[in-house]
Amino acid sequence: MARPMNAFYAQSGGVTAVINATASGVIQAARRHRNRIAKVYAGRNGIIGALTEDLIDTGRESAAAIKALQHTPGGAFGSCRYKLEGLEQSRAQYERLMEVFRAHHIGYFFYNGGGDSADTCLKVAQLSETMNFPIRAIHVPKTVDNDLPATDCCPGFGSVAKYVAVSVKEAALDVLSMSRTSTKVFVLEVMGRHAGWIAAAGGLAGSRLGDPPHIILFPEITFNEEKFLARVKACTEKYDYCVIVVSEGVRNAEGKFLAEAGTRDAFGHAQLGGVAPVIANLVKSKLGYKYHYAVADYLQRSARHIASKTDLDQACAVGKAAVELALKGHNAVMPTIVRKSNRPYRWTIGVAKLTDVANREKTMPRDFIAADGFGITAEARRYLAPLIRGEAYPPYEDGMPKYVTLKNVAVKKKLKTTFKL
Amino acid sequence: MARPMNAFYAQSGGVTAVINATASGVIQAARRHRNRIAKVYAGRNGIIGALTEDLIDTGRESAAAIKALQHTPGGAFGSCRYKLEGLEQSRAQYERLMEVFRAHHIGYFFYNGGGDSADTCLKVAQLSETMNFPIRAIHVPKTVDNDLPATDCCPGFGSVAKYVAVSVKEAALDVLSMSRTSTKVFVLEVMGRHAGWIAAAGGLAGSRLGDPPHIILFPEITFNEEKFLARVKACTEKYDYCVIVVSEGVRNAEGKFLAEAGTRDAFGHAQLGGVAPVIANLVKSKLGYKYHYAVADYLQRSARHIASKTDLDQACAVGKAAVELALKGHNAVMPTIVRKSNRPYRWTIGVAKLTDVANREKTMPRDFIAADGFGITAEARRYLAPLIRGEAYPPYEDGMPKYVTLKNVAVKKKLKTTFKL
Repeated sequence: MARPMNAFYAQSGGVTAVINATASGVIQAARRHRNRIAKVYAGRNGIIGALTEDLIDTGRESAAAIKALQHTPGGAFGSCRYKLEGLEQSRAQYERLMEVFRAHHIGYFFYNGGGDSADTCLKVAQLSETMNFPIRAIHVPKTVDNDLPATDCCPGFGSVAKYVAVSVKEAALDVLSMSRTSTKVFVLEVMGRHAGWIAAAGGLAGSRLGDPPHIILFPEITFNEEKFLARVKACTEKYDYCVIVVSEGVRNAEGKFLAEAGTRDAFGHAQLGGVAPVIANLVKSKLGYKYHYAVADYLQRSARHIASKTDLDQACAVGKAAVELALKGHNAVMPTIVRKSNRPYRWTIGVAKLTDVANREKTMPRDFIAADGFGITAEARRYLAPLIRGEAYPPYEDGMPKYVTLKNVAVKKKLKTTFKL
Repeated sequence: MARPMNAFYAQSGGVTAVINATASGVIQAARRHRNRIAKVYAGRNGIIGALTEDLIDTGRESAAAIKALQHTPGGAFGSCRYKLEGLEQSRAQYERLMEVFRAHHIGYFFYNGGGDSADTCLKVAQLSETMNFPIRAIHVPKTVDNDLPATDCCPGFGSVAKYVAVSVKEAALDVLSMSRTSTKVFVLEVMGRHAGWIAAAGGLAGSRLGDPPHIILFPEITFNEEKFLARVKACTEKYDYCVIVVSEGVRNAEGKFLAEAGTRDAFGHAQLGGVAPVIANLVKSKLGYKYHYAVADYLQRSARHIASKTDLDQACAVGKAAVELALKGHNAVMPTIVRKSNRPYRWTIGVAKLTDVANREKTMPRDFIAADGFGITAEARRYLAPLIRGEAYPPYEDGMPKYVTLKNVAVKKKLKTTFKL
């Protein structure tokens, strides 16, 4: 029997509260098949680790440390934003990958990321055919943006959704308490440059008419200042306060991001900061209401302390499934989440071809957004609600979560050549 | 025996994750002494409720609802920002208070707030002497700012401290994962206009040299652009990333808030938003590092989902103690937290005269701030660490915290007169 191959695992793009849970799933599954996968090497800082032959030997980590990845946010091996283009444009990169993979006897490629990484993974998979290189490349889904096609949802999204829904609910209670004499309008800026999934999750904070958030601004809906201000006014007059969730990707009729459009600066100077202060100042200058705003930024996607149990389970499951798919001989595929039913919520793992995943973006269906463009529909609620279910608290010590730091021992380099990024 | 008097309870100023736990403590304790305190009336929207005779009958709430206040953020009866001046300047207000209190047979005044409210409470207490009005006025401490004197710490602070420490730790893991190719500098803006307690709590995110946060900017330390930028550069060159916690109250050498000083706008225009974008843009323009920033705003003080158990216990305890002090005949006092020891952390309830509390502000001791002005000392750590200890999760349903909404039934008005605020 041939000497078993090693596996390469890398994290790509923005990290999530549960991407390390997927890493844990991959490594644990591989360890159960030592006869077929000798070692799992992780790329230090993602694919860059492969290009620079900077590999991490995950075999040096204890079973307890690998398990602790399940409750540790961030990217335990480092991630990166580094896009490989097509095989022709980035030929040097792909040849370097093969050189490193050959040197380290790597036959499995697990790439944990979003849309761009699915494309890279597909290209690596194609090396097996076009360049006759023996590799099985499996893309493992991860993105807070929830914009991957072919899967019902993306690991990482459920947790950011829960964070945003809980934060809106809590902040709204604060605003409501004070609205009689103080702040009347609260704006929370959330991520989502092209798709409004995260903003939509804010809608789960309330369930009855009049519950906050009163207004959600989606990137899918062109911002209409007049309609928006009328809505803020009506809401504030009726409820004495108005809670607004705004996606960073909201654009005006000219297609410009509000965050960059400088709506409120009469001199036309570019504004510092994001869209929340633009919206807040618009409300202040046109309606005179006192405002506060928050920008969740990285807090939302790293908030492991309030992760969704459903999301965590799915993040682990896709990691495990990726290894199993590879061992079954699959190549150029991605494990997916398949929804079996809403009530009770049941899901299973499926599989999609990367040709159906790469370079496609799943925006919110129009019927998830209310007719007036300012809220979510019952349909959206049915989709979103199960994804934030369940709590999965990390262990604490002295009041702080006990997140693991891996040893991240480097694999000895075998190549004499280096690679300039 | 005389007919027992009623009590008035009001929430004042900015609310916290645990101010309702104090309300719960007051109401539960009063219910155990029905022979002496007939009813607890809460002011709708704080003291405004007393002035406008808009009282809430807390007797209409079930024991379960009052208990559920312990896990519900915001201000359950509404709060307000409405400052009463001295007895002479605000004579009409104080006379109105007495009119309402007399009409509703109110003999106990529990005022739950910060420094300004302590002053108001003291004035109400003085009515008993100067105007021969039979009232016992107890101030109940509450403020995320932790700036009340005479008490070791303030209920509300421990929870915001825990939120900030956990958020810094989580976001820092995110930034570290990506710093090789993406964001190198992360800025988190926290509350604290005059005192740096909340910013200091961010320091609990790390404990070893090199741990984030790498820089804390306190309102107590004048901002020095040159020193700051040198520190950011040194940190980023050494660790490849730099995490900064900045208090909203940081000022420049001219005594101006950075948030308003428009440091980065060459045209001198006032900037939108807070201090985080100012700091972030300064770093970008002078050092060229890619940045992200978050503004925690209300999220930090409403985050009941990550409240400190220590803080919760203390919030309940001061409520209970306030009632007991009143029943013992005290007037013009405030229950305090007295620290008995650091290891193990032990505390008890003490009592302070309001004349020692009102209109004083406790800023951070200079020996809590590192000599270079950019971090906390071991002394600060010893003080802060116990305050964030313990988790006290709210119950969840379908993935969302189950926060209680009270009935807040109005007490029938007895006066024919109204009061214009």
